[in-house]
Amino acid sequence: MDELGRLPGIGPKSAQRIAFHVLAADPIDVKRLAVALQRVKESVRFCEVCFNVAEADRCKVCRDPRRTDEVLCVVEEPKDVVAIERTGEFRGRYHVLGGAINPLEGIGPDHLRIRDLLVRLADGVIKELILATDPNTEGEATATYLALLVKPMGLTVTRLASGLPVGGDLEYADEITLGRAFEGRREM
Amino acid sequence: MDELGRLPGIGPKSAQRIAFHVLAADPIDVKRLAVALQRVKESVRFCEVCFNVAEADRCKVCRDPRRTDEVLCVVEEPKDVVAIERTGEFRGRYHVLGGAINPLEGIGPDHLRIRDLLVRLADGVIKELILATDPNTEGEATATYLALLVKPMGLTVTRLASGLPVGGDLEYADEITLGRAFEGRREM
Repeated sequence: MDELGRLPGIGPKSAQRIAFHVLAADPIDVKRLAVALQRVKESVRFCEVCFNVAEADRCKVCRDPRRTDEVLCVVEEPKDVVAIERTGEFRGRYHVLGGAINPLEGIGPDHLRIRDLLVRLADGVIKELILATDPNTEGEATATYLALLVKPMGLTVTRLASGLPVGGDLEYADEITLGRAFEGRREM
Repeated sequence: MDELGRLPGIGPKSAQRIAFHVLAADPIDVKRLAVALQRVKESVRFCEVCFNVAEADRCKVCRDPRRTDEVLCVVEEPKDVVAIERTGEFRGRYHVLGGAINPLEGIGPDHLRIRDLLVRLADGVIKELILATDPNTEGEATATYLALLVKPMGLTVTRLASGLPVGGDLEYADEITLGRAFEGRREM
């Protein structure tokens, strides 16, 4: 129970419930879970190109020959890659920063994989850099920092659109989002 | 209790609670509520220009001489005007349709104030028409219909941006919204 309770999102009650479930479960199932947990630590590492999670030296996206090398999407975490891949809208490559600039928590540009990003941009293959950091304060600050840094290299730098979530109601949007949706309105 | 229970969002329990509250309340407070309710029906009507709620022939927005007549924002309901006014981003005029096209509920273009909209556009003063109907199926259908109808008149027709809500996390955005945010990305 103590070990389970240290996992994120699992409180003492859940830990107890899981522990009793394990006691009653089929030994084969329990073994499979234990092996899976260990194998994650042994076989999953970070891609040497983009720092996404990978089971080889390079991740699936970096190994895919059908994707374009001309568009690079910068995200904060590997889970953002998963979210974007789910949309099926993006056919370029990624660069995972490993977080966002957050002065209050002592995370500056040096703590992120920004130098590796600049190295990737150096050969001029990449034409567009999409800054897909989170639309919150830290993510915006990181995007602004990167844009200033990279603009002189002469590539197109874009940011994901802010606006109304699809399927919603105008009246439920918060003021700032609705304001941005107005600002970013597009010709039909 | 019966009368109170017919209001939206008030079930039998709430109706009972309110009824007993009224019984115990100060007669002056109750009188004030009763007068306010009656006065709403007597004094609030629809603006003769834009069909927003108004306490005179014309609503506050239509009477304001500091707003521009060149930009017109089309919304579904008066409550959308309130939401947009709260952002402080918009300095033009409104046109309230009174709903959205919804074939399943039998609401077609003829049930909305579209003819009145066309009359307002006829004199050529309005340069931009912002279609701020809800970002759901009915709202999108209405915006598409209006865009087709109005485009030949030679004015700019825009739609509010779809994208990520401000302050959120990329990973919590639904796939369609994230896809739209990609599609609508803007140069920094």
